[in-house]
Amino acid sequence: MIQVAVLGYGTVGSGVVEVIEKNKAEINKKSGEELNVKYILDLRDFPGDPYEDKVVHDVNMILDDPEVKIICETMGGLKPAYDFTKKALSLGKSVCTSNKELVAAHGPELIRVAHENKCNYLFEASVGGGIPIIRPLNYSLTAEKIDAITGILNGTTNYILTKMDREGADFEAVLKEAQEKGYAERNPEADVEGYDACRKIAILSSLMCCKNVKYEEIYTEGITKITATDFVYARAMGRTIKLLAQSKEVDGKLFAMVAPFMISRDNPLYMVNDVFNAVCVHGNMLGDSMYYGKGAGKLPTASAVVSDVVDCARHIGKVIMCFWDDEDVKVSDVSEARRAFFVRVDVAKEKEAIDTFKSVRVIEADVEGEFAFVTDVMSEKEFNEKADAVGIISRIRMEA
Amino acid sequence: MIQVAVLGYGTVGSGVVEVIEKNKAEINKKSGEELNVKYILDLRDFPGDPYEDKVVHDVNMILDDPEVKIICETMGGLKPAYDFTKKALSLGKSVCTSNKELVAAHGPELIRVAHENKCNYLFEASVGGGIPIIRPLNYSLTAEKIDAITGILNGTTNYILTKMDREGADFEAVLKEAQEKGYAERNPEADVEGYDACRKIAILSSLMCCKNVKYEEIYTEGITKITATDFVYARAMGRTIKLLAQSKEVDGKLFAMVAPFMISRDNPLYMVNDVFNAVCVHGNMLGDSMYYGKGAGKLPTASAVVSDVVDCARHIGKVIMCFWDDEDVKVSDVSEARRAFFVRVDVAKEKEAIDTFKSVRVIEADVEGEFAFVTDVMSEKEFNEKADAVGIISRIRMEA
Repeated sequence: MIQVAVLGYGTVGSGVVEVIEKNKAEINKKSGEELNVKYILDLRDFPGDPYEDKVVHDVNMILDDPEVKIICETMGGLKPAYDFTKKALSLGKSVCTSNKELVAAHGPELIRVAHENKCNYLFEASVGGGIPIIRPLNYSLTAEKIDAITGILNGTTNYILTKMDREGADFEAVLKEAQEKGYAERNPEADVEGYDACRKIAILSSLMCCKNVKYEEIYTEGITKITATDFVYARAMGRTIKLLAQSKEVDGKLFAMVAPFMISRDNPLYMVNDVFNAVCVHGNMLGDSMYYGKGAGKLPTASAVVSDVVDCARHIGKVIMCFWDDEDVKVSDVSEARRAFFVRVDVAKEKEAIDTFKSVRVIEADVEGEFAFVTDVMSEKEFNEKADAVGIISRIRMEA
Repeated sequence: MIQVAVLGYGTVGSGVVEVIEKNKAEINKKSGEELNVKYILDLRDFPGDPYEDKVVHDVNMILDDPEVKIICETMGGLKPAYDFTKKALSLGKSVCTSNKELVAAHGPELIRVAHENKCNYLFEASVGGGIPIIRPLNYSLTAEKIDAITGILNGTTNYILTKMDREGADFEAVLKEAQEKGYAERNPEADVEGYDACRKIAILSSLMCCKNVKYEEIYTEGITKITATDFVYARAMGRTIKLLAQSKEVDGKLFAMVAPFMISRDNPLYMVNDVFNAVCVHGNMLGDSMYYGKGAGKLPTASAVVSDVVDCARHIGKVIMCFWDDEDVKVSDVSEARRAFFVRVDVAKEKEAIDTFKSVRVIEADVEGEFAFVTDVMSEKEFNEKADAVGIISRIRMEA
């Protein structure tokens, strides 16, 4: 029997306990041994909870118990999760986490500590909730040179954008509704400003490069400025607007960003709606492959944590391969990235815009008082200079 | 250095050699050791080929060489692939294959022989070409009780159906064009009659059940009877027609079939077009997840074979978990499966059809002389009795 501890009995933590109990037969079979949750760490007590007798308040009870081989860190945040994780790993206890913040901030160090102590730090649940994406990158696409990863990595913003598209509603109204339904936090900043997606693409980019991509270096733009009018244009172009998290190697340079993009119907991410997430991976042999599913939620996320527990259980005392070195990758300045832009200007500026941007594709839509167009492919720097010269209403980046 | 042999220097086999050469750096890093293709088995010679000196005609040169640890079987067919594979495995040489026919026919036996000899029989490339699906099922979704798998598993038929949908063309015309373009074989039976998809869903079903699902027991219906008129109705319903390979556990019974289905826009498989494949997996915790990409082609398929080679290289002398027992699963009679049906009858039979099927949803479309409707959910048996009584033009099964 393998003893497991769960740190944090919130949504994901209680999901982990539930999944291990409900799918006991399948999980024990795949683990090759029986798993048992011995401790649940939380500051609170849970009187009446079926697992109340497992709840402890002192992490040292877990760290000091040599029987505990695997720890699920579902606390979130950097403190005290970082200290608990590092101590556990240095004691040879594997840690499985859903904590994207911690993985993005200290991934390579914690992986190194794990490997030095013949145990593992796994984080399938940190990106894409229940969607298998870390393991496909590490174990499946091993014959590929991966040169681009593009994902819809945040369920809240995708829910909001889907609603805006379907109902012609404005951002604020949909956000309010999403908050009422519990799809968005009371303080929605981490989601709507793209910070959550930024952590996740930093993790995926690091695995793509086998080196460290610092999330602080990833240009991040949220969806708060997207309006119902933008969707009128999107529809007129047969497109929709999605918050994409993207990482691309172009001529040996790494470009990474989070921003709203106009994407076409041919893009496999076009059909990823509501709270669903998806990750599109481009490899030099396979081309595009996509991984789609529930990117958040108690049981999907818990399922991913438990799949890591199973992997750890099968590798007690052995290191599971993961290439994510400490060495930092230089993320290229976003101003060098090249693409086309969708632009809206006041109708009075039509001539000036055409003179400045030269070759433009005019977009006809049922909007009064505006002139809208798509530019040629150019660098962000060049675009910004021209846009500043003309004075535009707004712009959204174009993607295939 | 780990020595590898390739059996069969056709499309996939030559792709394997190409992938190992082109992505050497990535592959050797992930393998933890350098891989080298030592032999290529083929009946033919390849004068001028950069690897012509590796070509041998006698399999025993490979089997008798103790240096060869991993064999890629890319010959296809049952004979002599079965004998070669079994001998190799019994000598402790791992085998990685793209041969769905062999895996579907002898999978559990070959896996057992491999494990008895501390080596592995891996078959990622046998389903979905380059799409990682076998590994996600075996290694990622380990915390799930999987109860349904539905896939678009054949690129040729999906190309044909996509064309028929977009162009309003008839089956025969599109097939002819697909043959001219090389997307369909001169003898297209294995694809268009669904036999290829049947082998693949048998493999996936077996992994879902951890037991053996015999492909011979899977009801299989191809796309040869689908017409341009069917697509007129599909569009009128906001649907399209896809050849689905499906395996479902309902109340402890396993239902498996390959057949054309009318699917809705909300189905994630709706957007899987052209030669792309996708597999939708339903688990009790995660819900739906989908794996999408190129289901065929030289390099994508070869990439999947080589990912198996990497896995074998990392597990020399060790067994990689795979649950697929010899024990056969009883596949339930398709006549017991319950669903709604789309039905076309001669307009003269409108009243009779309504009297027989009772509650029907009439489908209005621009088709002369016909009456078309969707039935309530009923068993295939009940449907067939009613359809025989009325005398129908055709029927297509409905799927969410």
